Amino acid sequence: MTESKESTVRLLITCPDQPGIVAAVSGFLHRKNANIIHSDQHSTDPEGGRFFMRNEFFLAGLNGNGLDALRQEFAAEVADGFIMDWSFSPVWKRKKMVLFCSKVDHALMELLWRWKRGDLEAEITMVISNHPDRRDAVEHFGVPFHHVPVGPTLREKVSAEDAMMELMGEQVDLIVLARYMQVLTSDFVARYSRRIINIHHSFLPAFVGADPYRRAHERGVKLIGATAHYVTSELDEGPIIEQDVIRVTHSHDLDDLKRLGADIERHVLARAVTWHLEDRVIIDGNKTIVFRH
Amino acid sequence: MTESKESTVRLLITCPDQPGIVAAVSGFLHRKNANIIHSDQHSTDPEGGRFFMRNEFFLAGLNGNGLDALRQEFAAEVADGFIMDWSFSPVWKRKKMVLFCSKVDHALMELLWRWKRGDLEAEITMVISNHPDRRDAVEHFGVPFHHVPVGPTLREKVSAEDAMMELMGEQVDLIVLARYMQVLTSDFVARYSRRIINIHHSFLPAFVGADPYRRAHERGVKLIGATAHYVTSELDEGPIIEQDVIRVTHSHDLDDLKRLGADIERHVLARAVTWHLEDRVIIDGNKTIVFRH
Amino acid sequence: MTESKESTVRLLITCPDQPGIVAAVSGFLHRKNANIIHSDQHSTDPEGGRFFMRNEFFLAGLNGNGLDALRQEFAAEVADGFIMDWSFSPVWKRKKMVLFCSKVDHALMELLWRWKRGDLEAEITMVISNHPDRRDAVEHFGVPFHHVPVGPTLREKVSAEDAMMELMGEQVDLIVLARYMQVLTSDFVARYSRRIINIHHSFLPAFVGADPYRRAHERGVKLIGATAHYVTSELDEGPIIEQDVIRVTHSHDLDDLKRLGADIERHVLARAVTWHLEDRVIIDGNKTIVFRH
Amino acid sequence: MTESKESTVRLLITCPDQPGIVAAVSGFLHRKNANIIHSDQHSTDPEGGRFFMRNEFFLAGLNGNGLDALRQEFAAEVADGFIMDWSFSPVWKRKKMVLFCSKVDHALMELLWRWKRGDLEAEITMVISNHPDRRDAVEHFGVPFHHVPVGPTLREKVSAEDAMMELMGEQVDLIVLARYMQVLTSDFVARYSRRIINIHHSFLPAFVGADPYRRAHERGVKLIGATAHYVTSELDEGPIIEQDVIRVTHSHDLDDLKRLGADIERHVLARAVTWHLEDRVIIDGNKTIVFRH
Repeated sequence: MTESKESTVRLLITCPDQPGIVAAVSGFLHRKNANIIHSDQHSTDPEGGRFFMRNEFFLAGLNGNGLDALRQEFAAEVADGFIMDWSFSPVWKRKKMVLFCSKVDHALMELLWRWKRGDLEAEITMVISNHPDRRDAVEHFGVPFHHVPVGPTLREKVSAEDAMMELMGEQVDLIVLARYMQVLTSDFVARYSRRIINIHHSFLPAFVGADPYRRAHERGVKLIGATAHYVTSELDEGPIIEQDVIRVTHSHDLDDLKRLGADIERHVLARAVTWHLEDRVIIDGNKTIVFRH
Repeated sequence: MTESKESTVRLLITCPDQPGIVAAVSGFLHRKNANIIHSDQHSTDPEGGRFFMRNEFFLAGLNGNGLDALRQEFAAEVADGFIMDWSFSPVWKRKKMVLFCSKVDHALMELLWRWKRGDLEAEITMVISNHPDRRDAVEHFGVPFHHVPVGPTLREKVSAEDAMMELMGEQVDLIVLARYMQVLTSDFVARYSRRIINIHHSFLPAFVGADPYRRAHERGVKLIGATAHYVTSELDEGPIIEQDVIRVTHSHDLDDLKRLGADIERHVLARAVTWHLEDRVIIDGNKTIVFRH
Repeated sequence: MTESKESTVRLLITCPDQPGIVAAVSGFLHRKNANIIHSDQHSTDPEGGRFFMRNEFFLAGLNGNGLDALRQEFAAEVADGFIMDWSFSPVWKRKKMVLFCSKVDHALMELLWRWKRGDLEAEITMVISNHPDRRDAVEHFGVPFHHVPVGPTLREKVSAEDAMMELMGEQVDLIVLARYMQVLTSDFVARYSRRIINIHHSFLPAFVGADPYRRAHERGVKLIGATAHYVTSELDEGPIIEQDVIRVTHSHDLDDLKRLGADIERHVLARAVTWHLEDRVIIDGNKTIVFRH
Repeated sequence: MTESKESTVRLLITCPDQPGIVAAVSGFLHRKNANIIHSDQHSTDPEGGRFFMRNEFFLAGLNGNGLDALRQEFAAEVADGFIMDWSFSPVWKRKKMVLFCSKVDHALMELLWRWKRGDLEAEITMVISNHPDRRDAVEHFGVPFHHVPVGPTLREKVSAEDAMMELMGEQVDLIVLARYMQVLTSDFVARYSRRIINIHHSFLPAFVGADPYRRAHERGVKLIGATAHYVTSELDEGPIIEQDVIRVTHSHDLDDLKRLGADIERHVLARAVTWHLEDRVIIDGNKTIVFRH
């Protein structure tokens, strides 16, 4: 993790590939006296493909006002000519993150604990849950806990989501579904588009439908895994950020599988959240570019 | 791998679980002056479940005739009373293995090469292929190569399989489909039941149908894998022996994925074949018990 | 993890290898109407080597008094004849575990958290630290915290260890050094022989001496790891229980390495502690036999 | 692997870090109408540290003569001003690689086999061995084999190395010690500086000196590994390119450890060689920068 530093900014760019992009961006930063600390790029195909770039730069004395001016200059001098999607993200300003959970707590606790250790570049503004059970554990970390029950009808779900949006307000940089066992409406997903991360179990082969651990156990799989992805309107089909697996044997019973699954879920989710917060992930259609270490 | 040794035998047992099985088996071996070298067991549920056991024992002076007598005594004194499925497998007698391949050679070469190094407890009696391309490479290892073309009609497929069975004869302990790109008839599969191992790619999630690597690439998966399994009449749905994965990133193109997929396939297949030859695998319905190191 | 169950016992055995051990043990359990749930064994060499066995069995109605009787019968009928080291460990009686820590808390918190989730078969009777910093975090879990300062002289160290022994009393089944940054006296180690587990960083190659992370970073290692081991009088040279590694690159700075090292340390330690509590580990000289899943 | 392509070149740069490097390099390539396909960079510290860069670019119509001109222009317009170490490496010109081996063949065969499959961007000009055993296996791949015996005295070693240098001539881009069991003289190492890759076993902790596998087995390690590194005059202390490990248990005997060690050695070596040939490795003192996928 890069520590939060004054005057440090991350620039993410997506645009059609063409010659001269790197020269234009690095020339701009050089003219502004910025010092590039890290730079990563990826091209899907130099001929007619897409271009992706992450720059982390230091510009002595840069603050919020200076950054607004820099944004305007970048748009005029570079971005507009290359038809770029782009964003400047100041490292000194922690992203606002909200955690959603239900009853199980392994993913929630992993994130709260890493956050408390200073390993996540975020402010956790609140935890929202459709169950009251985790209030004490959450408040012990000094984080507000809101219990928003969700009824079984669509009308009740919409009403609950309205209450959640009211609680979160406008300023939300990331919502993490830390084993939140409710399907969100497409309205809600659209409103926080590209800012919701979910975690779920994964197997080879997949076991679509109910009770996947039981069926994976019956099939005698030798690996169980987890996938962290951005949420889109298609359930569990959004862009994958991170995946990992753990080895199991015939001597692991169904409870063992669920427990090991919980372990791998919390680690995969923690990595995905860390990378999002560090501006390491760019969404490209239904895929991601992840500029890891 | 345990080296092939005179007077060493492996005993595999499957039966309904009940008290006294271990006492009966170990008592029998002790009375016969056998020395247990390794013993592994597994119970799915001590109350009404299934029991599985692998014993490797040494009995000084034991040869083929002695082993036949031992089998009869074991049946009468132990196995029949516990309604056991069981087999004694002499380590001094190498299993007869046939490799099937088509055009791609990564899985075939890995097996031939490991076999030549002495790492596989088998005699490779022949390689059978529906393509002529790998003849030179196979014959260089001193292994007979048979080209058996397979036509597109069912009648031609049956005729080709008849020719293959004619070539292999009665004595086949294991058929390995080392990227053999033909679906076998259910008759063929039934004849060599529990003795055919296949390898195929695996992803999280699965991409069923055509061109899975392309679709995995489009979906931006972060892991690609392989699964080795016994072949049953349901295509790619037989009992899993081994699985593994390898990490990929957005910068791996489709060819990279295929190449890394080939790497992981050959290692997973080699492990599954090694364990089958060392009598480490027991099939239990659609699952396997694998007594690994 | 096997859940704590009434009437379930684990039997660990070490003895010189010779024919008939399994028959004797399983015959004994069968005569007592015990039902073997799991059994694992290992022989270093059937001719003149050592034999190791772990049995988990169920005996309806068995309680503390019955277990004492069973121990006496086992000694007389089996163990003495084979010169066995052996122990019966009742699963219904949770082991008493004490955690030692200093300032850093990653290993401590991982254990407390897994324990609270019910994943560790232990009662954590207390946490002892030479620093006061972790009192609040520990007491939040409902676990007593004792601050025992350790002065720089040997006299002060001995005095502190005396205070610790006084706090712990006689009933200690496991002491875990969860990043406890003090070297224990050989008297202390001898008193709790085979019952102290430590965790430390590991590299390939090793960097013996001061500031190993800095030197590993300077050498550009591509893997960093951790080793959990029993503590003996030779510092960091006791029997290894578990090891693991994580991949790093040139772009990880020294702080990254330390943070990733902390992550791998807490997982390796948690596995080692879990296995010890589940009676899966037998010490053999300076090695361990670990009967894993 | 990127396929060998006409008009594609890789540019590696090392220099003191300072603002404007990326702008200067990308501006130069843009002026020359080159299209950047991949670009990776790394800074040890933006303030007074070192800067490393790998560019892969396409310049339509570029050939050997054009490349020479480009080199001169790059030196004058960019490199000299930034005090750069740099190299242009044309992808259309396969690197000349020589393999050294002794008796064991696992590392040798892995490289020959990958090479034959087209996975290594090299021409293997010859195999040199101090033993005659592998001649047939090597010549089967169509690669010349030279047996150069090495006597026990320094005088004989120097004489043998002279013969090897004579055989290899001037054009050697990479020498791979594929389990070559001779220590090279520092003269030889200096002559092929930064162009010799070696593979050796690695453990946690290290077992320096004779018979490391036996001692690792006696210590009961749970992981065994391998390290690929550039050869320097300090034996086995050169810059590490790649490392990996494999899990072992108490039930693996010494032969198993050696066999698994051979497996992990061949994979680690193959990766290191692949990355060197693809110009992905920059040496920085006693460390490496490896620009992986």
